[in-house]
Amino acid sequence: MTDTQSHAMPAGAADPSGFAVSIEDIEAAAARIDGYAVKTPVLRHPLLDERTGARVLLKPENLQRSGSFKFRGAFNRLNMIPPEDRPRGVVACSSGNHAQGVAASAKLLGMPATIVMPEDAPQIKLARTRGYGARVVTYDRETESRDVIARALCDESGATFVHPYNDPGVIAGQGTVGLELAAQAAALGVRLDDVLACTGGGGLASGVALALAHKTPGTCFHTAEPALFDDYKRSLESGTIRTNAVKSGSVCDALLTEAPGELGFSILRKLAGAAVTVTDDEALAAVAFAFTELKLVVEPGGAVALAALLSGKLPLEDKTVGIVLTGGNIDPQMLMTALNR
Amino acid sequence: MTDTQSHAMPAGAADPSGFAVSIEDIEAAAARIDGYAVKTPVLRHPLLDERTGARVLLKPENLQRSGSFKFRGAFNRLNMIPPEDRPRGVVACSSGNHAQGVAASAKLLGMPATIVMPEDAPQIKLARTRGYGARVVTYDRETESRDVIARALCDESGATFVHPYNDPGVIAGQGTVGLELAAQAAALGVRLDDVLACTGGGGLASGVALALAHKTPGTCFHTAEPALFDDYKRSLESGTIRTNAVKSGSVCDALLTEAPGELGFSILRKLAGAAVTVTDDEALAAVAFAFTELKLVVEPGGAVALAALLSGKLPLEDKTVGIVLTGGNIDPQMLMTALNR
Repeated sequence: MTDTQSHAMPAGAADPSGFAVSIEDIEAAAARIDGYAVKTPVLRHPLLDERTGARVLLKPENLQRSGSFKFRGAFNRLNMIPPEDRPRGVVACSSGNHAQGVAASAKLLGMPATIVMPEDAPQIKLARTRGYGARVVTYDRETESRDVIARALCDESGATFVHPYNDPGVIAGQGTVGLELAAQAAALGVRLDDVLACTGGGGLASGVALALAHKTPGTCFHTAEPALFDDYKRSLESGTIRTNAVKSGSVCDALLTEAPGELGFSILRKLAGAAVTVTDDEALAAVAFAFTELKLVVEPGGAVALAALLSGKLPLEDKTVGIVLTGGNIDPQMLMTALNR
Repeated sequence: MTDTQSHAMPAGAADPSGFAVSIEDIEAAAARIDGYAVKTPVLRHPLLDERTGARVLLKPENLQRSGSFKFRGAFNRLNMIPPEDRPRGVVACSSGNHAQGVAASAKLLGMPATIVMPEDAPQIKLARTRGYGARVVTYDRETESRDVIARALCDESGATFVHPYNDPGVIAGQGTVGLELAAQAAALGVRLDDVLACTGGGGLASGVALALAHKTPGTCFHTAEPALFDDYKRSLESGTIRTNAVKSGSVCDALLTEAPGELGFSILRKLAGAAVTVTDDEALAAVAFAFTELKLVVEPGGAVALAALLSGKLPLEDKTVGIVLTGGNIDPQMLMTALNR
């Protein structure tokens, strides 16, 4: 039961050193992406504060280059590929946001990119990935293994495989979100009580939790994920990696991973506070709220942390709360579904 | 020809003093709205820079309380009403954004508000104005005079009339957009070459032009408006106020004023550089670009300055350009119209 107990400790109480990713890695990533990634602002909105009773700091990574935080990890990781390997390019698997992050990064670095994407990925994500000049190979999420396809592509071309989350370079890049958020909160003169970010494989969440544990050690970091894909919640509660029973069926297409990544889990089991889940309806309500009230375009998977806040999953009244909006690559039809709920 | 010549001078060359609104008025407005209005950030997006060849600083007033910059002017003006007059409330005429700004301000100050709105105003604007607790009186844009209706309402109740643009207190409030933009550009270490904002009656544009003329005197300020409602362009070119031939018929519902306001025109004829017009299709293309690429919800009238930039109406390559996005209160159907162009 030691794992469960250490998980239940407030974030920041655990020692944030000794992981596969260090704060120096995150700071090095920040230097690499500087001038390429958008330093997203912290947004405040009185209506959000009134509605929740909290002081909410939004970190809108939907405003990031490529439309999600994924550019940070991808650009950092691609920059770590030795010059002699770069001409052979990169291969990635992604439902669409890592795809765009890798494709946009590869384009900037002049590297060829091949992305393995589910054939039911949102049209906007398929089109935008191709728009960055990447080659897209589609597969059937229910019957084919994207890993097998990706491995064959790498064997064929000698390309570097860029994992969407189980890679220290990727996690370090995503951790720059936490680094910026901690600095921006400090500049505003506020102390972050709680921060929520979503988990698919946990690359973003683990990077952010690590950065916060170093830079604002009293802050509690919590994960948020779709109720149907609650692998992180069950894994954190049990202390071992648990998989999801299903492979599709949530509107949160960006978060439909099979299980926590080993690296992300090894970090979050020490540094995460609560593990919150939200229903698809709660995610869509958050998408609609972001559109109508905040005037921000957020996709369902990108709105899960906001959904957790809006639906009162944690007692955050009178707290200063950071919410990461992770992506905005939403098909117009999905937005209409959210608005017509 | 003196007027045309002084208009043709680069902004900043003219003396920005001696107007009905002073920089001290704008600074006093900034102090009044502090803690109530959102201090909107300056947003950068690499794609926008790549697409235009300019260094673009977006000032997203769609992220403002009430969904547009109008809250600034309304809240400032309402705060200037003597305490003894406040219980009798305020009356305003508006196609919807000033309506919401006044209604939201009145709610915060505990004052009753009655808003005269065209019956063809976007549903979202009618609903949101009522949502702030205001009484809404609708009229027919083609056959009725909103001014006559508003005057009768004021005579009846003793309420204070709050003009959407021809009021020094309103202009001073809107000018805080320029004050913030100048300070934010300075903090980023950049010098604004050009700034574009839209004009309806010219309250925002004149306030911003004034603030910039004082705070960043080398910056050229330009107006942008719908091609069908080019009253500012014709007025600035002729040196006298010209009216529009039509009263409706553009998707830019926020900008369908009859003519420049006298106060705004008296300022802009001295301080404005170019007067740019955009077609409805260009405005809708900018709405779609903001949604798809910038992940921002912007209404057509709020996207007119962005449309002017994107459609290359001015030679802005290699320039540092400030673009004010003025509002985000768009009906979902109008967004779909923009996305399906």
